[in-house]
Amino acid sequence: MSKVEQQVSYLLELDKLKAIYRKALIKCDNNRYENSAEHSWHAAMAAIVLAEHLPQTVNLLTVVHMLLIHDIVEIDAGDTFAFGEQGDLDAQHQKEVDAANRIFGLLPEQQAETFIAVWQEFEQGETAEAQYAKTIDRLMPFIQNMQNEGGSWKQHGISKSQVIKRNQHTQFVSDSLWQYITAQIDLAVDNGWLLNE
Amino acid sequence: MSKVEQQVSYLLELDKLKAIYRKALIKCDNNRYENSAEHSWHAAMAAIVLAEHLPQTVNLLTVVHMLLIHDIVEIDAGDTFAFGEQGDLDAQHQKEVDAANRIFGLLPEQQAETFIAVWQEFEQGETAEAQYAKTIDRLMPFIQNMQNEGGSWKQHGISKSQVIKRNQHTQFVSDSLWQYITAQIDLAVDNGWLLNE
Repeated sequence: MSKVEQQVSYLLELDKLKAIYRKALIKCDNNRYENSAEHSWHAAMAAIVLAEHLPQTVNLLTVVHMLLIHDIVEIDAGDTFAFGEQGDLDAQHQKEVDAANRIFGLLPEQQAETFIAVWQEFEQGETAEAQYAKTIDRLMPFIQNMQNEGGSWKQHGISKSQVIKRNQHTQFVSDSLWQYITAQIDLAVDNGWLLNE
Repeated sequence: MSKVEQQVSYLLELDKLKAIYRKALIKCDNNRYENSAEHSWHAAMAAIVLAEHLPQTVNLLTVVHMLLIHDIVEIDAGDTFAFGEQGDLDAQHQKEVDAANRIFGLLPEQQAETFIAVWQEFEQGETAEAQYAKTIDRLMPFIQNMQNEGGSWKQHGISKSQVIKRNQHTQFVSDSLWQYITAQIDLAVDNGWLLNE
């Protein structure tokens, strides 16, 4: 296979992310569930839109690439709900590593190594790029739940403290995003969209 | 409204692109139609994966941003089929300009101006970044139709010459992508997926 053929086979494999459904509802499309490809598009866009709120310069192309690929391992490993049990999340991680090796392995060898490294950097969440990408990944369902009057929070009886825990790293990433999140959480509690416990 | 609030209102508006359906079928998800948000995700990804086939360096972040936003005007103006009548496409263009002003206008003023300029650069198709983005935008349904044994080409009786015309600018963008496309078109004709006229 030529390099282009290998790259196209990777791109065609990624089509399957369009069939992985999340918990968020798309209100404007008959309240169907959102899939992970749409979520990844929306998150990559948000990273560009909100970059000015970072105190330091990051490599935005790396952040965007992380967000475009961060969920593709779900093609083999499925989606997990953000507020699921920790035990499930550990087993999930091994499945995701195997998936990354298989899916990125469709690419030419050097490119596969580079892309796996980007995915791992996101997973480890240590660099400024990975921390910002994780903030954005968690912000997306947050703003959707606010828009949907509680959405999956209300449906699953999620509490204020769970949402704070899920988003708390944002305070180390951006003051203005953290201020926004905490004000919105208070609003969600006032409206009965989050349990106050 | 604070800047973050304006930016979030823009991001929430973009949710509507998930309800704009195209002609391509997602085989792995019960042959449903693809929406423009998924297509934009896939195209942004492809731009990163295939960048090595360009003879010159481009600003890849700009290309990716172009592809993430290139279809959002469809929220107001709807999608048009690639092989539609030219008359329809002209009326469509004015609707898209109005849509760009409304949707990007949700952002803080300076950011709106910057984003409209990126969208216009893509539309005009003159810079190296815009030309590469357009190549990728057209390559996506191309590889999907090949994967789907003719897909929307076969469904609508599209000919080899129409597909060559649609993709011909690729020859000025990348030798290896153009070689790939012409070889695939021959294969499509051999398989009866494209009319040979």
